[in-house]
Amino acid sequence: MPEHAAHYAIEGGNAPGPAVLVCEHASNDFPPPWDGLGLSEGQRQAHIAWDPGALGLARELARRLGAPLIHGTASRLILDLNRPPHSPAAMPERSEAHDIPGNQDISAEERLRRTDAIYIPFHAALSALLARRLAAGQRPVLVTVHSFTRIYFGQAREVEFGILHDADDRLARAILTRDTGLTTRLNEPYSAADGVTHTLARHATPMGLASVMLEIRNDLLAGSQAGMAERLAPVLQAAIEEVA
Amino acid sequence: MPEHAAHYAIEGGNAPGPAVLVCEHASNDFPPPWDGLGLSEGQRQAHIAWDPGALGLARELARRLGAPLIHGTASRLILDLNRPPHSPAAMPERSEAHDIPGNQDISAEERLRRTDAIYIPFHAALSALLARRLAAGQRPVLVTVHSFTRIYFGQAREVEFGILHDADDRLARAILTRDTGLTTRLNEPYSAADGVTHTLARHATPMGLASVMLEIRNDLLAGSQAGMAERLAPVLQAAIEEVA
Repeated sequence: MPEHAAHYAIEGGNAPGPAVLVCEHASNDFPPPWDGLGLSEGQRQAHIAWDPGALGLARELARRLGAPLIHGTASRLILDLNRPPHSPAAMPERSEAHDIPGNQDISAEERLRRTDAIYIPFHAALSALLARRLAAGQRPVLVTVHSFTRIYFGQAREVEFGILHDADDRLARAILTRDTGLTTRLNEPYSAADGVTHTLARHATPMGLASVMLEIRNDLLAGSQAGMAERLAPVLQAAIEEVA
Repeated sequence: MPEHAAHYAIEGGNAPGPAVLVCEHASNDFPPPWDGLGLSEGQRQAHIAWDPGALGLARELARRLGAPLIHGTASRLILDLNRPPHSPAAMPERSEAHDIPGNQDISAEERLRRTDAIYIPFHAALSALLARRLAAGQRPVLVTVHSFTRIYFGQAREVEFGILHDADDRLARAILTRDTGLTTRLNEPYSAADGVTHTLARHATPMGLASVMLEIRNDLLAGSQAGMAERLAPVLQAAIEEVA
């Protein structure tokens, strides 16, 4: 296996809390050799390239929950860590209304290069982080942190807080029963049927670990993310204790 | 993450066939620092330490199917690669009628050491092997190769060939419908309910890959394993083509 720079980062790897936080779409960086993928500066700032505000929220939640956080450091348009490497959505030719020039007709060799460089190291690191906690006698719960755009294909979305689950819905339902003051929906604006729970399916479900994917509407994360973390952290803490 | 010697091996990593073969219980070697775990020479040769004949069969099948093979190189009694690291069966205090002296009251530190040294590298390597094939446009199927003892807790087992599945039973049923001349059972002598499909659950099910666990009664593998491979390989080949 060739050596690669790791396109992910772990913060608080030894934090003691039961939650392990993941932010796959944390970054809109386009490191070489993928500089920009032919996108405009505006496109590289937009939600198609990353989940704006998600990393800030994940960090604020991690601090409050005493949790480690692992996050991607390259744009999801190069490789979406939350999709299997053979999914068309892993290196999409088009996102919402935007063609991605650098993703047209990708060769098998280039798919392999991105998988080696980005997918494999991230998932190996997350898998090891969870395995080591399990071996040490902990029972981690997996929480992935995402944001979504308010306007999608011209339609405004009413939902503010989406709680998504893979096969195991315990943690999602424990969060859903608690009041956050947000317009909250289960399995909206996406669900496992859309293929968006890959990280949960790979790392939590096979280990019997409770897990959830959080989706926050990104206009609520503009500027500081601490306010949203302050609102959500106690709810998450209580829900995690309920399923532990 | 500390560096460790890898307690696994990959043979034919670039073999082109659609099957990827796994043999978790291939070895009854007890590398340092786990020399023997306090077991007698007889216990170290017995089925509690490994799956006798499984590696030979897996190699013969891999050659016939043009498949890569990944196998463990340390006894399952040190760490069972086919169990999550927090399972009591991963480092069992007792196996069938035998106490395992070196596995009594294992500390969290020792569990972590074995997990770091054996579990994490093996599963990272298998995960990478599958991800690279998926990225390159292949659709691998996962086949794990095991053997079981004829006499278990004093009872003779009639079944000769057990075909076990995790959530996806397509490949198991495609094999079951074909004649091997063996006394064949679905989900015997074990099944997913016994927690024995961990490798399938971790690597095949989340990726949507067809998979199966093969269990051959080990008295049928004594001496050469080529005869059994000659019997099973055409059946596997046809079944794999059916689900592809």
